[in-house]
Amino acid sequence: MDDPGPYTLRPIGVVRSPLRAVADAPNQAEGAPKALIEIDPAFADALHRIEEGDELLVLTWLHLADRDVRETHPIGDTSIPLTGVFRTRSPDRPNPIGVHRVTVTAIEGPTSLRVDALEAIDGTPVIDVKVALRRP
Amino acid sequence: MDDPGPYTLRPIGVVRSPLRAVADAPNQAEGAPKALIEIDPAFADALHRIEEGDELLVLTWLHLADRDVRETHPIGDTSIPLTGVFRTRSPDRPNPIGVHRVTVTAIEGPTSLRVDALEAIDGTPVIDVKVALRRP
Repeated sequence: MDDPGPYTLRPIGVVRSPLRAVADAPNQAEGAPKALIEIDPAFADALHRIEEGDELLVLTWLHLADRDVRETHPIGDTSIPLTGVFRTRSPDRPNPIGVHRVTVTAIEGPTSLRVDALEAIDGTPVIDVKVALRRP
Repeated sequence: MDDPGPYTLRPIGVVRSPLRAVADAPNQAEGAPKALIEIDPAFADALHRIEEGDELLVLTWLHLADRDVRETHPIGDTSIPLTGVFRTRSPDRPNPIGVHRVTVTAIEGPTSLRVDALEAIDGTPVIDVKVALRRP
C-alpha cells in the first residue's frame, strides 16, 4: 500500500434523533425518522449557501460498530448467506463510516439543519457533509 | 459535542488509476477513467460475494486535500459565488473523504476489483466499500 496511514478524523457535528438505541434503528433508511444535524460552530463557514431543499450526503462515524467483523448476514436476515461487509451496509466494518442521503427540510439555526430521514442514533458523530450528485 | 473523537482510520486498499495528478482529475466523475481497487489481502473476507455488475460506493481518503479550507468556488468556476465546502464535492474539507459510486466491471484477482469510472488519482487510499442503495 502506498500510504499506510493512519489518518485522524475529528467530528464536525452530531446527529440529534429520536432513535436512542441501535436496536431501534431501521435498515437502510426504511422508515428512518427526521433528524437534526448540529454542526460545530467552528465549521459554520463550511455550511455557507446550504438551503432548504438541498440534497446532501451526510457521513457519520458509527461509533458503536464492531470494527473486527468481516462477514455478516445482510439486514440481519440469516436466510441470506454470510456476505463480506464490503457488500453490505452493515455498520460493522473496519472503518465504520455511514453514508446517508438526506434532504434539508429546514435551516433551524446558523449551524443546525433539519433533514428528512436519517438512520443513525442520537449522538452519532458527523464527520462530513457534501452535496449529493444526481448519480452520487 | 457528545464524543469529541478523534477517530483513527486505516486504509483498507488503494486506487490504481491512469490519473497521476490532481490537475488531471475530472470533476464529479465526468469522464473519469476506469480504475482498479486493490484491497489489502488482510480484508479479503470482507469482499466475499462481491461480483461483476455490483454497484458499490467506494470511500477514499483524499490524501492531498487541504483540510483548512472552509469555502470554495464549486468545480473551480470563479463565476459561482464562494460556497461552503459542505455544499460542494471539493476534496478540500475538514475530513477529506471521497464518495464514489462505481460499477464492478471485472474481478481481477482475489482482492482486485476493476471499476468503470473513478475520479481519484493513482495511490489514493481506499477506506471503505459498501453496496450502493437504489437511493444511496
